[in-house]
Amino acid sequence: MPKASCAVRGTFFDFVDDPWHHAGNEQAAARFLADGLLVVKDGVIADFGPFADVSPRHPGLDITHLPDRIILPGFIDGHIHFPQVRVLGAYGNQLLDWLQTWIFGEELKYRDRDYARKAAGLFFDALLAGGTTTCLAFTTSSPVSTEEFFEEATRREMRVIAGLTGIDRFAPADFCITPDDFYKESKRLIEKYHRRGRNLYAITPRFAVGCTGEMMDSCRRLKEEHADCWVNTHISENPSEVRTAKDHFPDCSDYTEVHEKHGLLGPKFTAGHGIWLSNGEMRRFSKAGAAIAFCPLSNLFLGSGLFRLGRAKDPEYPVRVAVGSDVGGGNAFSLVRVLEEAYKVGMCNNTMLDGSIDPRNQDLGEADRNKLSPYRAFYLATLGGAQALYLDDMLGNFEPGKEADFVALDWKAGQLAMAWHQTLAVEEGGPETIEQAAQLLFGIMAAGDDRNVDETWVAGARAYKKGHDKA
Amino acid sequence: MPKASCAVRGTFFDFVDDPWHHAGNEQAAARFLADGLLVVKDGVIADFGPFADVSPRHPGLDITHLPDRIILPGFIDGHIHFPQVRVLGAYGNQLLDWLQTWIFGEELKYRDRDYARKAAGLFFDALLAGGTTTCLAFTTSSPVSTEEFFEEATRREMRVIAGLTGIDRFAPADFCITPDDFYKESKRLIEKYHRRGRNLYAITPRFAVGCTGEMMDSCRRLKEEHADCWVNTHISENPSEVRTAKDHFPDCSDYTEVHEKHGLLGPKFTAGHGIWLSNGEMRRFSKAGAAIAFCPLSNLFLGSGLFRLGRAKDPEYPVRVAVGSDVGGGNAFSLVRVLEEAYKVGMCNNTMLDGSIDPRNQDLGEADRNKLSPYRAFYLATLGGAQALYLDDMLGNFEPGKEADFVALDWKAGQLAMAWHQTLAVEEGGPETIEQAAQLLFGIMAAGDDRNVDETWVAGARAYKKGHDKA
Repeated sequence: MPKASCAVRGTFFDFVDDPWHHAGNEQAAARFLADGLLVVKDGVIADFGPFADVSPRHPGLDITHLPDRIILPGFIDGHIHFPQVRVLGAYGNQLLDWLQTWIFGEELKYRDRDYARKAAGLFFDALLAGGTTTCLAFTTSSPVSTEEFFEEATRREMRVIAGLTGIDRFAPADFCITPDDFYKESKRLIEKYHRRGRNLYAITPRFAVGCTGEMMDSCRRLKEEHADCWVNTHISENPSEVRTAKDHFPDCSDYTEVHEKHGLLGPKFTAGHGIWLSNGEMRRFSKAGAAIAFCPLSNLFLGSGLFRLGRAKDPEYPVRVAVGSDVGGGNAFSLVRVLEEAYKVGMCNNTMLDGSIDPRNQDLGEADRNKLSPYRAFYLATLGGAQALYLDDMLGNFEPGKEADFVALDWKAGQLAMAWHQTLAVEEGGPETIEQAAQLLFGIMAAGDDRNVDETWVAGARAYKKGHDKA
Repeated sequence: MPKASCAVRGTFFDFVDDPWHHAGNEQAAARFLADGLLVVKDGVIADFGPFADVSPRHPGLDITHLPDRIILPGFIDGHIHFPQVRVLGAYGNQLLDWLQTWIFGEELKYRDRDYARKAAGLFFDALLAGGTTTCLAFTTSSPVSTEEFFEEATRREMRVIAGLTGIDRFAPADFCITPDDFYKESKRLIEKYHRRGRNLYAITPRFAVGCTGEMMDSCRRLKEEHADCWVNTHISENPSEVRTAKDHFPDCSDYTEVHEKHGLLGPKFTAGHGIWLSNGEMRRFSKAGAAIAFCPLSNLFLGSGLFRLGRAKDPEYPVRVAVGSDVGGGNAFSLVRVLEEAYKVGMCNNTMLDGSIDPRNQDLGEADRNKLSPYRAFYLATLGGAQALYLDDMLGNFEPGKEADFVALDWKAGQLAMAWHQTLAVEEGGPETIEQAAQLLFGIMAAGDDRNVDETWVAGARAYKKGHDKA
């Protein structure tokens, strides 16, 4: 398929480093161009910089101007369930009951190719409407859903990671897949999709509570035979789940060891949630180069708990962290909403950590790291997510050579009070300094939602424009 | 001013009792009319019931049909700050720092009449866009802001409660008001506004941390001299605030006693938050007939903590509970968003109370009461709020004789995934049973926002229509 070329002029904001490495001077990790130009050839960034510098190098360009917007790299959703698009925000109990009541029944429908295909269209529409251009997704235990996911992503030329999702216990019999079938089907799907177009494959044991030792062995074998593949799973989302995992794997001292023992914990391994990981488990994640997908919308909606972001960002043992919507445990596709809730989780954590409740719990360093500034937040949704998922050689910022996925944010859109609120940062016109841009971005994450996503571009072509979507 | 008359046909949903009194059979507290008719004369409900019954009683009516909507009583916001409309969702620290950094400076601007008048217009626009028709509001320590608030409410014929907001310590000198000036200005404003049109007056000590004993004495005197007035304040929002209140009132054994000692705790007394109230304090609230405004958006945004809803709804000692946006600590005007966060707070509380973490904390009764079904949620936003604020003789449901404020909800609007999600409840057309309607309402609170408010009516006249607002 021929890839798109374009040149886009506007106000750009991206990251060149982790803002947590620059506490007190976070803007050093970011890059702001009040008037920039992004030149894309065949879906890849060919040039980027101030308009006045870049423009003369490319005479005769057909330039698309996006005024009154802040253009960021496309958002990366590090944890989402494709077959839960319809059941997002379902009324229920905590995790394990919620799965049984709402989720497994809905996911069973994805054995039907027509249903899965229709859902895939809606799923990717919803992602793009939220500014998300890349995701790490669960499918179901039926290969049909995995196929339809990759087929739709291929049609849209989106960079995605997904895989057949293995579960062989703790689910209805017709929802389970045997470890042997899982191995065979996964191999077939890896051959068919991995590194075809922009598709990447993740070996996907759903979660240890739903996997026997044999299923985990199948995953180990797949990873040994396809070392280039990603691994995607869940870990330590809910206290009852943690206890059940221990019951299921009595020879493992903790939940993390289940993955270590089966050769999975390492680079390109991502586990959703990690709320109840011990400090020691977090250190092992850090040393292994494994990542956690922090899913605050879901964690609050299911009452799972508060992820210790400031602990994960411990400078001695930093864990790679992405953010995820976790639709349908998460009740919105919008990563703007995810960042809002991530901010809240940090603030709630800090009521403990600032010593307000119990002075013995005071840890001002961790409390500071919990605080989600706009720099930290939008880093997590872009370059940080790319680094967590080992995609930063391909995307995550506007470096030439990277893939040209980006989102144009309208800082005034959303609830009625938004426009006046944002005049606190910029009275008229657009941001002229990085501080102003960061304040507008905080306004978006604090008081905004998907309405702030005005357009979304994939591989150099406009894939979504607000008001012109199908819904 | 002549009041409006109208007749509205559509699908109606309201409450006749508290759903917590009907655990396991909550629909007994609600009323659902798939095809109903509401007849309004001079701003007051004259008749209400099934269309087939009511319509023949009123020949020749000019009927407005609102198809594909669920019509509820107007939402009641039990805790909101008028002068914080512009600073909603400000980046910051916990409560006390946040007040000093962002809030007092903004509120000072409301001494300027032009600024306050412009803000009042935006404030009420934003309320109506969220479906809110009644609020209990803080103003500032400047009478100008209180006047402009009531003048704008009068122009819109909205039922509101507010009052000059007293603070004489813990704020910049020019923001404070002396207890004597507060007393005199409050009296003047009570004479001018209380029970004029739909305005009601609340004697408003901002919070005990910001009030000397003399200021609290002024409040006691005002309440003694104007027993018909409401009282509005804050309590136990944040652990540091609780400690400071104890330091400021060393002769009181707890925060609640500050209000008891000054003759304020009783009917028509409402305090925002109450997160850190002890069980004993909650019982004293219950016995006194005092109310708490639960503000989950704000409580999460400022990291204040998790309100123990299930404890407040203890059947032996039930506390009156309203919900509040607490804009600007709350980051949205939409009560739909407030209910979403209230659900999350209940779910997070229950990770403790179901014994998942510590079996000694298990309290399944309280855990059940924490769980915010759509019945409980929309009760809190309508009749429950009216009962908490002692307004249920005037409004809160569709009983004839009550004031005709209502909101028409579009259950398919909002994020792109919403429409398909809602087909889980109703495949096509509108709800035919109360269970279907409740499921659609849960869909709105779980995955929706202000976009689900299609129109808002005040005193029998349309005051807001989505897509035709000024913003």
